[in-house]
Order: sequence, then C-alpha cells, then structure tokens
Amino acid sequence: MKRAIQKAETLVEALPYIKEFSGSTIVIKYGGSAMNDQDLRESTLKDIVLLKYLGMRPVIVHGGGKHISELLKQVGKEVKFLDGLRVTDKETMKFTQMVLAGQINKDMVSDIHKAGGKACGLSGKDGHLLEAKKMDSGSKDYGFVGEITQVNTELIDLVHSGGFIPVISPIAVSAEGDSLNINADIAAAEIAIALNAEKIIYLTDVNGILRNVDDPTSTISHLTPSEVEVLDKEGILNEGMVPKMKSCIRAIKLGVKKVHIINGTTPHSMLLEIFTQSGIGTEIVA
Amino acid sequence: MKRAIQKAETLVEALPYIKEFSGSTIVIKYGGSAMNDQDLRESTLKDIVLLKYLGMRPVIVHGGGKHISELLKQVGKEVKFLDGLRVTDKETMKFTQMVLAGQINKDMVSDIHKAGGKACGLSGKDGHLLEAKKMDSGSKDYGFVGEITQVNTELIDLVHSGGFIPVISPIAVSAEGDSLNINADIAAAEIAIALNAEKIIYLTDVNGILRNVDDPTSTISHLTPSEVEVLDKEGILNEGMVPKMKSCIRAIKLGVKKVHIINGTTPHSMLLEIFTQSGIGTEIVA
Amino acid sequence: MKRAIQKAETLVEALPYIKEFSGSTIVIKYGGSAMNDQDLRESTLKDIVLLKYLGMRPVIVHGGGKHISELLKQVGKEVKFLDGLRVTDKETMKFTQMVLAGQINKDMVSDIHKAGGKACGLSGKDGHLLEAKKMDSGSKDYGFVGEITQVNTELIDLVHSGGFIPVISPIAVSAEGDSLNINADIAAAEIAIALNAEKIIYLTDVNGILRNVDDPTSTISHLTPSEVEVLDKEGILNEGMVPKMKSCIRAIKLGVKKVHIINGTTPHSMLLEIFTQSGIGTEIVA
Amino acid sequence: MKRAIQKAETLVEALPYIKEFSGSTIVIKYGGSAMNDQDLRESTLKDIVLLKYLGMRPVIVHGGGKHISELLKQVGKEVKFLDGLRVTDKETMKFTQMVLAGQINKDMVSDIHKAGGKACGLSGKDGHLLEAKKMDSGSKDYGFVGEITQVNTELIDLVHSGGFIPVISPIAVSAEGDSLNINADIAAAEIAIALNAEKIIYLTDVNGILRNVDDPTSTISHLTPSEVEVLDKEGILNEGMVPKMKSCIRAIKLGVKKVHIINGTTPHSMLLEIFTQSGIGTEIVA
Amino acid sequence: MKRAIQKAETLVEALPYIKEFSGSTIVIKYGGSAMNDQDLRESTLKDIVLLKYLGMRPVIVHGGGKHISELLKQVGKEVKFLDGLRVTDKETMKFTQMVLAGQINKDMVSDIHKAGGKACGLSGKDGHLLEAKKMDSGSKDYGFVGEITQVNTELIDLVHSGGFIPVISPIAVSAEGDSLNINADIAAAEIAIALNAEKIIYLTDVNGILRNVDDPTSTISHLTPSEVEVLDKEGILNEGMVPKMKSCIRAIKLGVKKVHIINGTTPHSMLLEIFTQSGIGTEIVA
Amino acid sequence: MKRAIQKAETLVEALPYIKEFSGSTIVIKYGGSAMNDQDLRESTLKDIVLLKYLGMRPVIVHGGGKHISELLKQVGKEVKFLDGLRVTDKETMKFTQMVLAGQINKDMVSDIHKAGGKACGLSGKDGHLLEAKKMDSGSKDYGFVGEITQVNTELIDLVHSGGFIPVISPIAVSAEGDSLNINADIAAAEIAIALNAEKIIYLTDVNGILRNVDDPTSTISHLTPSEVEVLDKEGILNEGMVPKMKSCIRAIKLGVKKVHIINGTTPHSMLLEIFTQSGIGTEIVA
Repeated sequence: MKRAIQKAETLVEALPYIKEFSGSTIVIKYGGSAMNDQDLRESTLKDIVLLKYLGMRPVIVHGGGKHISELLKQVGKEVKFLDGLRVTDKETMKFTQMVLAGQINKDMVSDIHKAGGKACGLSGKDGHLLEAKKMDSGSKDYGFVGEITQVNTELIDLVHSGGFIPVISPIAVSAEGDSLNINADIAAAEIAIALNAEKIIYLTDVNGILRNVDDPTSTISHLTPSEVEVLDKEGILNEGMVPKMKSCIRAIKLGVKKVHIINGTTPHSMLLEIFTQSGIGTEIVA
Repeated sequence: MKRAIQKAETLVEALPYIKEFSGSTIVIKYGGSAMNDQDLRESTLKDIVLLKYLGMRPVIVHGGGKHISELLKQVGKEVKFLDGLRVTDKETMKFTQMVLAGQINKDMVSDIHKAGGKACGLSGKDGHLLEAKKMDSGSKDYGFVGEITQVNTELIDLVHSGGFIPVISPIAVSAEGDSLNINADIAAAEIAIALNAEKIIYLTDVNGILRNVDDPTSTISHLTPSEVEVLDKEGILNEGMVPKMKSCIRAIKLGVKKVHIINGTTPHSMLLEIFTQSGIGTEIVA
Repeated sequence: MKRAIQKAETLVEALPYIKEFSGSTIVIKYGGSAMNDQDLRESTLKDIVLLKYLGMRPVIVHGGGKHISELLKQVGKEVKFLDGLRVTDKETMKFTQMVLAGQINKDMVSDIHKAGGKACGLSGKDGHLLEAKKMDSGSKDYGFVGEITQVNTELIDLVHSGGFIPVISPIAVSAEGDSLNINADIAAAEIAIALNAEKIIYLTDVNGILRNVDDPTSTISHLTPSEVEVLDKEGILNEGMVPKMKSCIRAIKLGVKKVHIINGTTPHSMLLEIFTQSGIGTEIVA
Repeated sequence: MKRAIQKAETLVEALPYIKEFSGSTIVIKYGGSAMNDQDLRESTLKDIVLLKYLGMRPVIVHGGGKHISELLKQVGKEVKFLDGLRVTDKETMKFTQMVLAGQINKDMVSDIHKAGGKACGLSGKDGHLLEAKKMDSGSKDYGFVGEITQVNTELIDLVHSGGFIPVISPIAVSAEGDSLNINADIAAAEIAIALNAEKIIYLTDVNGILRNVDDPTSTISHLTPSEVEVLDKEGILNEGMVPKMKSCIRAIKLGVKKVHIINGTTPHSMLLEIFTQSGIGTEIVA
Repeated sequence: MKRAIQKAETLVEALPYIKEFSGSTIVIKYGGSAMNDQDLRESTLKDIVLLKYLGMRPVIVHGGGKHISELLKQVGKEVKFLDGLRVTDKETMKFTQMVLAGQINKDMVSDIHKAGGKACGLSGKDGHLLEAKKMDSGSKDYGFVGEITQVNTELIDLVHSGGFIPVISPIAVSAEGDSLNINADIAAAEIAIALNAEKIIYLTDVNGILRNVDDPTSTISHLTPSEVEVLDKEGILNEGMVPKMKSCIRAIKLGVKKVHIINGTTPHSMLLEIFTQSGIGTEIVA
Repeated sequence: MKRAIQKAETLVEALPYIKEFSGSTIVIKYGGSAMNDQDLRESTLKDIVLLKYLGMRPVIVHGGGKHISELLKQVGKEVKFLDGLRVTDKETMKFTQMVLAGQINKDMVSDIHKAGGKACGLSGKDGHLLEAKKMDSGSKDYGFVGEITQVNTELIDLVHSGGFIPVISPIAVSAEGDSLNINADIAAAEIAIALNAEKIIYLTDVNGILRNVDDPTSTISHLTPSEVEVLDKEGILNEGMVPKMKSCIRAIKLGVKKVHIINGTTPHSMLLEIFTQSGIGTEIVA
C-alpha cells in the first residue's frame, strides 16, 4: 500500500509540469539506440504516447542511417560519405526513401498503436510538408541531398487535430518533384521553427554535450547559443554535433524556447527531462 | 537518478488508466477528514485538479454538517436530529445555506485555484440545478429537508465546457422557491445519474464497507447491488451507510458504472482507486 | 379595449430603445430598498429578467451591509467602521462571505427564477473573478478589506452564453487565497470596465445626486466627470457618494458609456431610465 | 412620471408572453387595410419589427389583389373572376407577378427598414420556395392559378438566420418553370405547415368570424376545426372565408398550434392578440 | 470514342483555370441579347450555373431597359432620355421597379433553376443592399435616378453561403425610403468593389472596345486604366461606353483584379474568357 | 474560335454529371499501365485531381506487384506464388511494405502535387486504417497475407476534410502488430464499403469483362451480381478476375452503388466513365 501511495504522489508531483506544457508542441528527433533497441524503443514510444495523453503535441522526426546502409549492402550498392553526408545518387535516394518512409516510418506508427496511441506516418512529400533544393556546396556534389526551403505545417496540424501523433520521415521534395535526402537533425529543427514549438528533444546515444568527449560524465548541463559557438571554435564539438548545433542555434533564435540533447539509452530520459528538475543532458536556451 | 527513473515509470504505468477514463465524468462526494483536515484537504484537492488535467470531468458534491452545527451553536440555535436527519426549521435552513453555499463552497473553490486548477461554486438553486419537494415522512416533520425531484445539468455542463471544476452545495429549491436541505450522499448519486457518470467516489473516514464494524481491516472489496441488500437485511450496514447504499444501488441500476466507498484519510486514496489495481475500499458494480 | 391598445402602443414605443441596447452589457449595482423590500425586490428582478429577454446582458452586483450587521449581532461580534469602511477581521470576513455569497446571492438567484428568468450566482472567488490586495491606507488597518487588482470576466461571459443572468457577490480573493471584502459600488464599476459595458446603473434610495441634500427634488440630471469633481470640491457630495463617484469617473474614462444613479424605490426606475426619455435620477456621461 | 411608470408596467406585463413565444415562428397573412392604408401599414410593420426584436420569427405572406386589378385596368386588360378565383391568362400572370414581386413586395421591404427592421423579399420562385401545379377543376379553366405541391423552406430559414424578416409573394413555380398565381391565404397556411409554425395570423378587415355577417360585434372568439365545419355546413361562413377556413383546418391538423383571424384595422391588433388576454378576433385551436 | 476522349481532354485543360478561380467572386453584368434572346439566355445561364458548381461565386446584376420601355408604352407613358439617362418620374420609377424586380429578376431566378442551379432574386431594397441619393446634376433633373452611396453585402454573402446564386436588380433605396433607378453597369462595378471581386464581366452585344466603331473586328484586347482615359479623350469611346468605363477604372483602382467587356452573343463567351487563353473581347487590368 | 466554343460546350455538357456526383466518394483501384507508364500516369493523376476540384472525393488504392518483384530480384529473394497469391515470408513482407508504402505511395503523392492537387499517402498501418488477420486457407500457408477484419475510416475522412486526396497502400496490421499483405482489389472494395462510396473504379489493362478473353472487343457492358456469378460458374472469368469479382459483388450488396472495370490505357477512361454516357468497360450494378 505504501508503494502505491508513493506512486500516487509521483503523479501529483507531475501536475505543475503537466499544466506548464499542456498544449505545447514538442518536436522529438528520434534515432539511435532509443529507436533501434527493441526494449528501449517500446519504452520510448510509450513515453511519447503518454505526452500526447497529458495534453502535449509531440511530433516525431526519425532518422534511419543504419537501415539504409543495410539495404544498400543487400542490393550491392556502395555506401559513400563526403564530409559526413551520405552521397546520394538517384538509386540510393530511391532506397533511402523506401527505408525511411516505407519501413521505419510505418513500423513506428504500428508500434505507437501497440503502445496505446494513434499515429499517422508522413514524409516530406505528403502535402509538400518539406520543400527543398539540392544542397549547394561549390564544387562538391552530394547528389540528392537537400536543403530545406519551406516547411508546410498544414498536414501536421490536421493530423494532430484528429488525435494522431505525426511521425515524419526526413525526405523532402524539390521544385521538380524529386526526392531529396535531408539530415534528420536539421529537419527536426526546421519543423520545430515552423510549428513555433516549445522545445526540441534530441534523443542521442550520449549524455548531451560533453566537455571532454572521452569522459561521459563531463556533460555540460546548460548552454546559451553564444556559448555553443565558443565550444565550436574551441573544437570541443565533434563532427556529428556541428550541424545539429547550427540548427539548434537557428531554432532558438527563431523562437523555439529550448533545445535538449539527452541520452535516449537512459530509461524514460524524455519524461525525466520534461517532468522533473533532475536536469539530464544538455539544454540550450536563449 | 534511479529514483527519478522510478518516478517516470510510475507515470507510464498510469497510461492505461488515463486512456480508459479520458472524458469520463466522476462525481466525488467530498466530506469528512479529507475535507476538514487542512493537509488532507490540500492533497485531495490537488488530486482532483490532476484528474481534470488528465482529461476527466470531476464533479464535487460537498457536505458540511460539522460547520453547520458550529454556526448554529454560535447563534444559539439548538441542533436537532430525527432518524439521522437534521430537523431543519426555516432559520436553520438559512444558516445551513450560508454555511454550505457561502462558506464551505467558496473556500473550496479558492483552494482549488491554489492547487492549480479552476473552479466554479454552484448550489442547487443556481440554474435550478436541484429541484426538490419536502420529504414526505408520514407524521414526522423534518422541516425543510428535501427529496430531489429533478436534476438540471445544464449549468454543470456549461461550467465544465469552460474548463472549470464544478463544486456543488447540496441545497435544492422547491416549487415555491424555498431552499431545502439535501443529504449530500443522495445528492451526489442523483447528480451522477443525471450526468450519466462513469463512477461515484464517496470519500469517507472508514475503509469502505466493513464486514465487522469493529474491525477496520474487514473491508469487503467488491459488492453487487443484491449483495448490498443482503447485508442490509443482516443488519451489517450501520445507520449512516443505509441511505448512502440505497442511492448507490439506484445509481448503479440507472447506468452509473461503479460506486466506490473509500477512506479519504488514506493519502491519495482517490488516485489509488482510479490509477492502480490496489483495490482499496469497497466497490459496488452491477 | 382602448386600454389594451394603449398598452400595445407602449410596447411599440420601446422599440427604438430595444434596438439601441440589443446586445449591450448593463451592470446593475443592486442594493438598498429595491433589494430589501419584498415587493420592490420582486418588481426589480422582474425588470432585470425583462432586460435579458429583450436582448441585453444584465450583470448584477449586489451589496448586503444590513444583513451582515444582523448576523454579526446574532453571533455577538461588534460592528466597527473606520472612514465609512467596515473594519473586517478574519472572523468578520467569514461571516461577511457567508451572508453575501451564501444567503443574499443564492436567494436572489432563486427569486430571479421565480420572476421567470435563469440565473447563476458567483462570487469573486469563483474562477478568480475578482483578484485583490489588502487596501493600503498608511497607518490605518481595515483588515480584510480589498482593492481590486484584476477582473477575470471568463466566467461571466460563460454564464451569459448559457442564457443565465450572472449575480455577483463583491468578495475578492487575494494572492494568498484569502477572502477580501470589496465595496460593492467599486466592484460594479470595475466589472463594468472589464466587460466594456454600455452602462452602470446604481439602484439607490435617493433621487440621484442632489444639489441640496435636504431637498430630494434637487436632482442634478446630467453631469460630466469634471463637473462631478467640482461638486466634490464644493463638498456637495455626501460621504457615501464619494467613493461611488470616484469609480464612476474612472469607469467613464475607461470606456463605459454612461453611469446612472437612480432611485430604486421608484417602481420600474431602471426601465424608465432605459426605455423612456423621462430622465430620472442623475446620469454621468463623458 | 406616473404615466411613465404605467408604461414600464406594461412592458413587464408582456414578459410572460415574450418568454412563451421566444423563438416561435409566426406566419402573418398580410393584406386588406392594414396593408393598403398608409398609417395602418406603418403601424403594422412596426409591430412586426417589434416581434422580431422580441425574439420571435415572423414570416410575412402578402396579397395584393387591388393593385393587380389597377395595373390590369391601366394596360387595358379585362379582370375576370370565376368562383372567387381570378382567371389568369399568361399575360395576366405576368402583370400579377410584376405587381406582387416587383411592387408590393419590395415596397414592403423598404417600409420594414423604415420601421427599424431588416427584411428580404422573396417570391415562391426564389429557391423554388413554392412549387405548384395548375389547379385541377374539372371542366373549368382558371388559367395560371396554382395548387401548392411543395414548400421548400431553406431560403426562409437562411434569411431568418441572417436577422432578416422574410416577406413572401404568393407566386409559385410549376414543374415547367411557369409562374402560377396562388391564393395568399392558402400560401400562408402551407408555409406555416412547412415551417411547423406556432401560429398563423390573418390580418383581415373584419372582426374575425361573425355569427351574423351583418353584426360586426357577433365575433365568435373560439372555434375548433370541427365547429368550423359545422359553421360551413350551416352556411354561416361567407364565400371569401371558405378557402381560408379549409387551409386553417388543414394547418391545425398538421401541427400549427393556433390560427387567428383578426381585424387589421384595429390598431396593434396583432400585438393585442399575442401579448394580452384581451381575446380579439377568432382563434381556431385543435 | 475519339470524340469522347477529346471532350475529356477539354475538361482536363480547364483544370488550371478551375484551380485559379476556385472561391473567386465574379460579378456579371447581364443584359443585351444574352439576356433577351431565348437560346442565348438558356445557354448563358447554364454557363453561370457551371461557374457556381466549379467553385466560383458568380453574382448577377441585370438590366432591362427594353422591357421597361415596353411596359411604359403599354400604359401610355412617354419614354424620355436626357444625356443617355432615363428621366424617371415617380410613376416611371414604379413601373421600372415592377419590371426589374418583379418580372426580369424572378423569371431569371426560375430559369437558373431550370438550368440546374439554385438562385435568389434581390433588389437593392432588400437588406438595403444598395443605398443611394438622387443624382446631383446641377440644373438638370433626371428625377428618381440615383447615385450609389453605400453597398451592404450582408445579404449577398448570406445567399451565397446557402448555395444560391444572387440575382440583383439595380434599384436602390434613398435615405427617405424612395426607390431610385441605378445604371446597371455602375451597380455591377460598385457591387464588385464592395465584394472585393476577382473580376467583372460585362456581357454586351459588341466585341469589346473597338478602335473603330464601324469595324467589329477592331477589338482592343488589352487596356490599362490610363489607356482607357486616353481613348476617352480621343473620343473613341461611344456614349454608352463612357459611364461603364468610368466605373471600370474606379473598380480596378479599388481592388477588382480585372474587368472584361465581351460579346454575349458569342456562344459561351464567358467560359471562353475564364477557361481559355483565347482572349476574346477587351480586358482592363491595372 | 470555333474550336474554343466547342471546348466550352464540352464543359457545359459535363454539368449534369458534376451535379450528380458532387460530394460523392469514388474509390479508385489504381494499377497496371495507367500507373506504370509515365504518360498515362501523368494523365490519370491529372484526371483524379480534376475530380477533386469538381467536388468529388476520390480515394486512391494502389497496387505494385511489378515493383515488389523487381526489388525481391535485386536482393536475391525468390518470388513465389500459390493460387495467384504471393507467398509472403517475413522478409518478403518487409520488402513489400518498403516498395508499396515507401516508394510507390510517396512518388504518387509527389506526382499528384505536380498535377496540381494535394495528397497524403497512407498505409493500412496509419491510424490502423486496415486491420486484418492471416488468411486462413486450411493446410496452405501463404505467410503474411491478410484478410481484412476492420476498416477504420477516420484518417481518410480527416485527410479529405483538409483538401488532400488520400493515397492508400494495401498493407494491413494484425492484432499482433505485424504487417500483412492485402490484395489491392479487395482492399479497394472493403474501403469503398466502409466509406459508403458511390462507386469503385478498377483501372485495368483490359476493356472490362470480356465474353471471349481472346477478343478484346467482346466487352460485356452491364452486369448484375447474379450475372457475374453465372459467368464465374461458366468459367468465363479468368483467374485474376475471380477475387476482384467476389469483392465487387460484396461491395454492391453492402451499399456501393456501382463498380466499373475499365481500361486504364484508354486516355481519360475514368472521365469518360463519369462524365459521358459513352459506356466504356463493364459496369456492375445491383
């Protein structure tokens, strides 16, 4: 009985947070182990369904690099990267779209239903949700890698209004109707900006931004955009973090209230971030 | 950190219950120590505010016998009871209304705001919410004690639609416009019937219905209406329980799904009842 | 038959006024004989119900000093006044609230139903309708007497939208959740300002503002805010009128179109004021 | 002042009637002196505007025989009647439509605006409001005289919803698209049936149905449909009354609550009928 | 089969135009042979019904000079013109209103129903749609000829919202309630301005504005307001065109996107103008 | 010009059909050359966009067997069929879903935008649109091939309400959350039944149902369900047609008005079917 009472107390302690975030849009960049490990995945999706029931408006933007590489290997296509970006020829783009929009997205939708929620999978092609142009990078040619030029939120709002959680594959459409591959971190940030979101949560496999990459306990818990820029100059941010950080700073400057980089392998890390003052991971605030 | 994770797990465990009761009307008969003890009161009202934020529609019906007796003593009126009912002359009725609708009701509304919610206090006179006639009891004269003839739920629905928790004083209005005193247990049941409520929760100072009045651990956890009638015949129900039980049976027969009699002195007893399978108190189900 | 035709003509004569005030909010400060005398009370409430049916939005703010004093006497509390304000200790405040929100308010609601309308009683605690702080008066201590800091009209609008006449007790809530006693004249003015009302009607026991207090026929029929200030300097306003007048001037300056001070003991004085050009009482216009 | 108070009392006396008929549809067959005499016309239209402001839904169906005959004379067409019905050849129908829908209808709309209301003129051709077929009368040929087969109330409801009083010319459209002349008394009854009206008021130049045609004071104040049939058999109804009465009985049988035949030359006769118990004219009730 | 396929292609070719004008308001000044010739009339009305079904909001403003003159002759009234304007005494105005609002308007409404649509006929008197004052022309007296002072679009919007095509007679109402005759070309332009219309289409009997009046093939296909002014100075516009052109320029300046002057005797000229790039008639664009 | 006029006439001829099908739901089973041939595909999607603009509610259900087989070959999986059904092991199902929901669906959505419309791609997993169980076929094991048990239309209605054309991949979800492969013909029929559709159009590569398979001109233009059953018994239906026909009969019996089997390689065949009386292909009507 005592345990039951403690549990009830926990619910009550969540009340101020439930009040505060009621009606807020929270964009979740979903990837890494939290997505690929079966148990973590179930637990994470349940957490997201809970957010929806508690009155928030979660929006999921997922990645899927690992699965794409797997399929490419299976069909005998070489996997090429240039400056951390996947070089994407027409056929690679086709397989990328298949994996993101056909496999990962739809399986996630199913899993959300299993977790007790309702979801609708979308790609950036549906309702021209993400419009982009080919990335312009001087002499280098990344192929069908895009830079977002416009986010059309109409379909996200529609899906939310019907009680569904939108799950978005980071594939954009060009003016010519071609598919373009978009970095999921950047897609999440741009979608958050367009939705005027309360926060972006990046579910990663690390404990936020580390002062010392080799020391997982050296998390910097609080940063301002200008402090991030200093870290970047000092070379403390690793290669993968740089584009994520650039988007974050842009998002903060354009009205998103907070960005969180948290470790998705910690159970319920997202709930901890939203409903407690534990302060896990790194938060970036203006 | 581990404790924080356990807390998050507790939230997730509540998800199926949140889903189940989302949108349900829950009538709470509020009285006893849960109302009169300052700490329990704060905690109980916070629980009710939480229910509202979790998507339920709580309706509070409060009592206040103790406070009425206090005021009567202060003004030098004798307190008389007949068959467990307060004999209510015109002046007693006036003081009863003052205490219920003017003091207890409005203070509770304030306390709900303090607990983070929004509330609107109503009496059965507002919008003719409770219409009644004088109780017909043969030769005995209870004075201005009423029997409900009609519940008009329009104002309750209006108040809910605006996001307010309705707090109702059990005072009815007669066809002549007189105030009539209504037993709060019965008022709660009649209101629940009219609202087609999911459940009625009676917050009492005992652990539900006891098989042996002298043994507080002899709670009968589950009863059907017909089993209640058997208990009544066997004389196991004490005097205060009988009218409550009659209303309960009527409510169950007219569509209310469940009635719970729980101990309001147990912290968060209401949440335990709704969000766990702990099974506290007595539940009556068809 | 001729009399019947004359009656019909009267209805038709009211048409331009019905058109003019259709949809307008009219705040009525209700007190004095119009409230306390049984016959006048019935007649006045019927007039207010008529306004509602003719498409206006009447809002009643009532007083109740006489009844408060009565109860205080009954429980043996001394009644103290300082500069025309009731010195209100904690217990006095409790009794004040009981009388206003529990007795007068709810009985008035009942009487409005008897008169053919629908009403909902509210206090400033419901939905935090009236927020206030303790009156700051240098060294003097009036106790729980408040100064309004915020009017939240949400609940008034909700009640009106449901077809109910809102009846408001002038009790406010402090930031700490305490009840504070508010001068009903001032409460009426502040509520009218917040609702952007067309007019405030003060039902008093005198014929408006008199040039000569001893001559009840010396009514000044028309005043501007600056003329009121001149009267005040000349000492022509009596003590009770001064705070009322200050609120009126504030209301006029903040957008209320007209303030009327009329004699509630004249039958149908309110209707005369609204539906005829008889010009009774005093009107204050920018 | 005393007169002013009496006027106010008159308004209050109307309250129960205003309540009773709030939201009710009242079809007014408008013709005779009440329409053709300038002063009576102004007064009658003001009465109708008042009904609208008091929350009722008046629908005007007008006649215009006199004006039609005038125009026919002016253009040198012979006016022919057969069994009380105007024999209507194609050209006569054209002139009839011009007068009803172009002259009387639109002038009435203007006059309603002058009287302080808003109106929209309609004919049975607009939105196919009145569909009819040629009257089938054995060997007799009345020409373009129609019998209503269908009333489409969509446009009446639309016009009401916008706050306009619908003013209807009794011209119908045949399946072939031809205009057909409809008896205005019958049109009023059929429209009332289709709208499920509360009452039909026939404004005539007589004091209702008279027991003795030569004695204008011999009004029968109350009749049931079966009593009307008896009167008809006894030959007490005059020729003009017979079709009106047949429609009335049909209307009563199909759900219209009351039919009133009143003298439109009595000032405010309609208001007297609705707002007093004076009992003018004849009422027919099931 | 091949022909059928060509037909289907035609539908598909219309798609970009359907998209472009979906939801647009198009005011059609309807007169001349397109109105008076039976076959052209049927065909033109069908075209308008089609526009409505394709998602546009057509508004018809009709003329009727020919019919007015006919009736005037029939009743023996002299027809007088002064500077191209019909001199309109009170009686002439009465006949003008009869013909426009009673005959032409209602017959057109019927014909629209025959063509498969739904319509509601309105005059400028209904809902005070067109308010005007007597034309002020120095010493000349045109009688009841008006100049529009205000367009009230409420009734047009209401009628559209119900799915009906509004058909408007160019008769206005003066401040005194008199009817005033309005030039239909001007009425169309003013209504288009008030509705913020996409385009005005003038259905005439000529091929637009001709460079050489005697050469029907000398149509000027595109003009700006300033070019029109040059044409006017050069005396190339004929007398009838001048007022039309003045209104057009005013309309373009006040936000109407395009004005088209087309030949209504060309079958489906309106559809050609809207759905093809054939470029018939003259278009005036800012 | 003459050609332009003929085109306009074509639009007008379509009016009765536009009226008839305005607001109707039309389910299109989309496959074969109309989907795979680039030119036919563009033309067909434009036709569907046109239907949407003309006020209908098209719903696309697509197939994709050819593309699935291609991918399977590319990854080196054997393609197996049993009784005309693809034997679908877990991995085949994964690739099937990738191709249908990730490639074909999203590319089609893009192409609809190119054609001037707005679309949203859905699979049966989104919003649990299609729930199914494994096909029960005695001893035979088809693997993850499903039989629809429930169609949840909520998401289709939502997408339509936002102005988007729903494009559906025939993949269902089992009670365990597994993906199941559904025959697209059957999926189209079940979705049509659930939506209470007006018609189902099967776009095939043949001229409907042929009396003689070897004679493409032997189309049977009209069939009733019972005639189809006769054809089936006579062995005239080929293997691919049998399941399609069973679904069609079921759909007709459950309220779908008409089923059309038409040749998608004929340009605009769908428009011909809807907007002309040419009578192409086979129609099945109750």
